[in-house]
Amino acid sequence: MLNIADLQQRLREFAAARQWQPYQTPKNLAMALVVEAAELVEIFQWLTPEESQALRNQPQQHQHLGEEIADVLLYLLQIADQCQVDIPAAVERKLVLNAQKHPAPPADPAP
Amino acid sequence: MLNIADLQQRLREFAAARQWQPYQTPKNLAMALVVEAAELVEIFQWLTPEESQALRNQPQQHQHLGEEIADVLLYLLQIADQCQVDIPAAVERKLVLNAQKHPAPPADPAP
Amino acid sequence: MLNIADLQQRLREFAAARQWQPYQTPKNLAMALVVEAAELVEIFQWLTPEESQALRNQPQQHQHLGEEIADVLLYLLQIADQCQVDIPAAVERKLVLNAQKHPAPPADPAP
Amino acid sequence: MLNIADLQQRLREFAAARQWQPYQTPKNLAMALVVEAAELVEIFQWLTPEESQALRNQPQQHQHLGEEIADVLLYLLQIADQCQVDIPAAVERKLVLNAQKHPAPPADPAP
Repeated sequence: MLNIADLQQRLREFAAARQWQPYQTPKNLAMALVVEAAELVEIFQWLTPEESQALRNQPQQHQHLGEEIADVLLYLLQIADQCQVDIPAAVERKLVLNAQKHPAPPADPAP
Repeated sequence: MLNIADLQQRLREFAAARQWQPYQTPKNLAMALVVEAAELVEIFQWLTPEESQALRNQPQQHQHLGEEIADVLLYLLQIADQCQVDIPAAVERKLVLNAQKHPAPPADPAP
Repeated sequence: MLNIADLQQRLREFAAARQWQPYQTPKNLAMALVVEAAELVEIFQWLTPEESQALRNQPQQHQHLGEEIADVLLYLLQIADQCQVDIPAAVERKLVLNAQKHPAPPADPAP
Repeated sequence: MLNIADLQQRLREFAAARQWQPYQTPKNLAMALVVEAAELVEIFQWLTPEESQALRNQPQQHQHLGEEIADVLLYLLQIADQCQVDIPAAVERKLVLNAQKHPAPPADPAP
């Protein structure tokens, strides 16, 4: 379970203590988000598909990946906080849209 | 609260029902992640900083932003699932690293 | 041969005729650049390495790729124009840096 | 003027001398492209629009920007080379499409 409201509160305090609020507009946070997403891409850029699947067994790369996943998530939480997006509600709504866009094929009938 | 394990389970079932597993390597999911992050950036690209802060009052753009936030999060959950990254633990670890990298300045003393 | 100065002049006139100059700060153009780069990534995201190499034989995808390459290049030219970066000089300088960073291994000696 | 064919030839030789060809699929080069585009975004992420316009007067940042512009361009040239995209032709074709998509408003009539 991820406590979104608690994390958003801690990120707000972290930014306030460093007087970062003027910099943290949604626009700038969106830029920071894509920079972190690209750093996550960088981990995989020269790997084969198979190597990318085996990364979980490489302790150093696995830890690095965890840091980049956290970076992306923390900026996402800050954008949602500033723009008052309810993340769990947005996720449920998007899952419905995805299911409508990509209907599941019928399951194979019993023989 | 976001139920990470439940969402990851539903995403696994969604992909399996569509036989998408061969496509969903961590490498490919990382590419999809940065594509979605860039779609989020696109919302803000021509806005002034002030307009980006007022976006929460634009119902259509606010809804669009929610969809892109959900898209980024859903790919992030799938990457973490496949690579066995414990997201809450990775986030707590990264928050400690961030605090070490950017120490808070001392609070102003009482007068 | 690509006539950089001519293209930059035409892009300046295109923006001026549409009164787009206030929007085309280097910051906003950088955002547009990464959005277009991600659209290029999107073409390849679910392809195998082999399919990505065979894309040149798919007329529709090949044409789409040409459009995204052009989009990335046109934003790059506009950023360089506004920030007064001499692209051919920057490229030559970077090629020297790359050769220093990644020295070529010695060629195999004759037997 | 940018000598595209000459640069592509030099990049091919650079990769061959380091035996990088197996890694340089169009898919992987697209990933590298978006990583470099994001590094360019990173330069601007916390700047105001005005600061982004004044970057050309900051020698160190200006040089850094030149390096990132070169990195993006060099990957773009390699993708075009491998996928046999004629860059000048693609650019001219895209400029026509852009003019159709965004017709210029009529110029103000003479008084």
